[in-house]
Amino acid sequence: MQEFLAKAKSCTQQLATLDGKTKNRILNKMADALEDNANIIISENAKDMKAGKEENLDTALLDRLYLDESRVADIAQSLRDIASLKEPVGRVLDGWVTEDNLRIEKVSVPIGVVGVIYESRPNVTSDVAGLCFKSGNVAILKGGKEAEHSNAIIAKILQRVLEIYKLPKEMISLLPDSTREGVAELIRQDKYVDLIVPRGGEGLISYISQNSSVPVVKHDKGLCHTYIHRDASHEKAIRIAVNAKCQRPGVCNAMETLIVDFAIAKDILPKLYKYFIDAGTKLKGCAKTKQFIYIDSATDKDFNTEHLSNQLNIKVVENLGEALEHIAKYGSGHSEAIITENYSATEKFLDAVDASCVYVNASTRFTDGGAFGFGAEVGISTNKLHARGPMGINELTTYKFKIYGNGQVR
Amino acid sequence: MQEFLAKAKSCTQQLATLDGKTKNRILNKMADALEDNANIIISENAKDMKAGKEENLDTALLDRLYLDESRVADIAQSLRDIASLKEPVGRVLDGWVTEDNLRIEKVSVPIGVVGVIYESRPNVTSDVAGLCFKSGNVAILKGGKEAEHSNAIIAKILQRVLEIYKLPKEMISLLPDSTREGVAELIRQDKYVDLIVPRGGEGLISYISQNSSVPVVKHDKGLCHTYIHRDASHEKAIRIAVNAKCQRPGVCNAMETLIVDFAIAKDILPKLYKYFIDAGTKLKGCAKTKQFIYIDSATDKDFNTEHLSNQLNIKVVENLGEALEHIAKYGSGHSEAIITENYSATEKFLDAVDASCVYVNASTRFTDGGAFGFGAEVGISTNKLHARGPMGINELTTYKFKIYGNGQVR
Repeated sequence: MQEFLAKAKSCTQQLATLDGKTKNRILNKMADALEDNANIIISENAKDMKAGKEENLDTALLDRLYLDESRVADIAQSLRDIASLKEPVGRVLDGWVTEDNLRIEKVSVPIGVVGVIYESRPNVTSDVAGLCFKSGNVAILKGGKEAEHSNAIIAKILQRVLEIYKLPKEMISLLPDSTREGVAELIRQDKYVDLIVPRGGEGLISYISQNSSVPVVKHDKGLCHTYIHRDASHEKAIRIAVNAKCQRPGVCNAMETLIVDFAIAKDILPKLYKYFIDAGTKLKGCAKTKQFIYIDSATDKDFNTEHLSNQLNIKVVENLGEALEHIAKYGSGHSEAIITENYSATEKFLDAVDASCVYVNASTRFTDGGAFGFGAEVGISTNKLHARGPMGINELTTYKFKIYGNGQVR
Repeated sequence: MQEFLAKAKSCTQQLATLDGKTKNRILNKMADALEDNANIIISENAKDMKAGKEENLDTALLDRLYLDESRVADIAQSLRDIASLKEPVGRVLDGWVTEDNLRIEKVSVPIGVVGVIYESRPNVTSDVAGLCFKSGNVAILKGGKEAEHSNAIIAKILQRVLEIYKLPKEMISLLPDSTREGVAELIRQDKYVDLIVPRGGEGLISYISQNSSVPVVKHDKGLCHTYIHRDASHEKAIRIAVNAKCQRPGVCNAMETLIVDFAIAKDILPKLYKYFIDAGTKLKGCAKTKQFIYIDSATDKDFNTEHLSNQLNIKVVENLGEALEHIAKYGSGHSEAIITENYSATEKFLDAVDASCVYVNASTRFTDGGAFGFGAEVGISTNKLHARGPMGINELTTYKFKIYGNGQVR
């Protein structure tokens, strides 16, 4: 492992200084290579599918694992999209001249060696490899065991393209020991690894956060609220609340708890009830909610749970202050929304809520690299530091200061 | 401890939304309070001084510990300087409109609860408290045992000012358990603490980095190089090299190793030798260096050591490539300089060196918040992520996205 990581680290300087044109040419070549080898990829994927069926993986998981010609074409297209992104390295982020007449430039640079730990979708292997390569980072990838063969062949094809361009294949590689022990070792190697990005279950992420000596950018849970203020447009409120819960209930930016002002509860809750029942949403509510609609009781545990399913808690509050308290207590700092036409309530909510994304009159479902216009999705960080919220390719860079002098001493 | 941290965490929202005018008024009041209570501070400091002398602390340490009226006035002035800094919270860092016509603003916000662990200078207590307060962060401070009484009285005076303004005193506090065990517990409390900033010895920093589950911004060692390229102005080269080593040898941005191109070694090394001998610098060199000047041999260990004293290694190289290799192998990623009039060598060096600060024709001694024009010194980060290099007060903030919609759903 040490030797493998040392080799990976030794590629950083060469990769950091590759020019954009070369990187893009290679990314496009990688896309072609994946398509040219679609048959091999599909036959390796079939091994994973067979094993998955034998182990009775659920249908949703098997569907995410499955590759055919059109899905391979999508994976290739993603690499071409990444190639077309604006160069993330060398952006001048700031610049000034000091009192000593030193000219300082703050410039974006790659992070170095990035380890990404993810679940079983084989397209992630190619996407992450492409995003790291474009941003000048050496990628160490650890996918799910279920996608073992698919990931291996995809990585091999990408590495072969690197070799065609006389670049070391260690610029993109799978973690050689993909067991728990391998991951445990990887996250202690701060000498060689600069960043760990875990995407996966809560257990994995918590294990890595607690044990990594390498900085971690987490992609953790989202416990998101939508608060319908007394001055909300009811039409917007209903549309946004239903969308935030039902459009795709199993994702981190979906709403888990709806908060409603008491002053409008009598009017709006029965209407919301109808929409949610039509959408098959399972509703639970606090005692005050149950004064207005006939649903099950929500416990403290419900308010603390990311359901990842079409289930919703409803909480009725006296005012904005109580809504803010509820969000501060139960929110995960991911995405929070207020629905209101009131200026002061808007400003107060935007300032007081401590979350990566705070919305006025829009669905929390927009917390997403694509919807933000970042082009390609690195993930949605639940960190407070380095990157927070939707991560674009620019968040795979850090910075350095270039200082231009003409003989200055102190 | 849990209870103490929960209280600290509970202040974050109130502190994050305090307006700048109020914060500055309080900071100035704190400065006044320190001066008004100079006598008490000095008498508490005398206890630390007495204990320090009894424990035979060295003179330099005792000097840094010592407070008199003029030093208390300096500490107060620092708080006034912090008050006069530009408001770090609420800066609009970026902004755009998405395809869905959502207006997104990326805005600076406080980090939350910041734990700072530092050595025995009591002025740090006040400085760090002021910087955290101005940037809207709750500060948990853990100073050196040697400054126990001084730190306690300073913190108490600052807390009293908070109480005058009806703010919870937990916005600024000393870690109640200041033992090793207390620190060990603090750095595992990621539920309550958002950032740990250790400033101190290598042992402490490495312990914290290895064991913290809270993100850490390190202030670690600096092993800095100055490389005199064959096309250097000799006059600038000598001036900068001598300054980088001798002006203040005990600090992290001082030079530890001088690298000289073979082509000019015969000419420039004897001149440098004279200057360094005059400055009392202890010189060691590689085999090639010793062809030109009569000094001791530098071992691999010497090239790997941050001397923190007036000691210098010299390495002669064939060319820029060999210099870059040496820096990549031995450098700590802090500050590196090239002295040259050659354009291409400059560009190559600036791009290839992986360090927070890369200089052309200037002394590495400029790596410093003050010299960078940041106003007040949080420290010099040796992290690659969140903050890298000199940290101004802006680096005590993170960001959130404010998203303004008018009913958008996905």
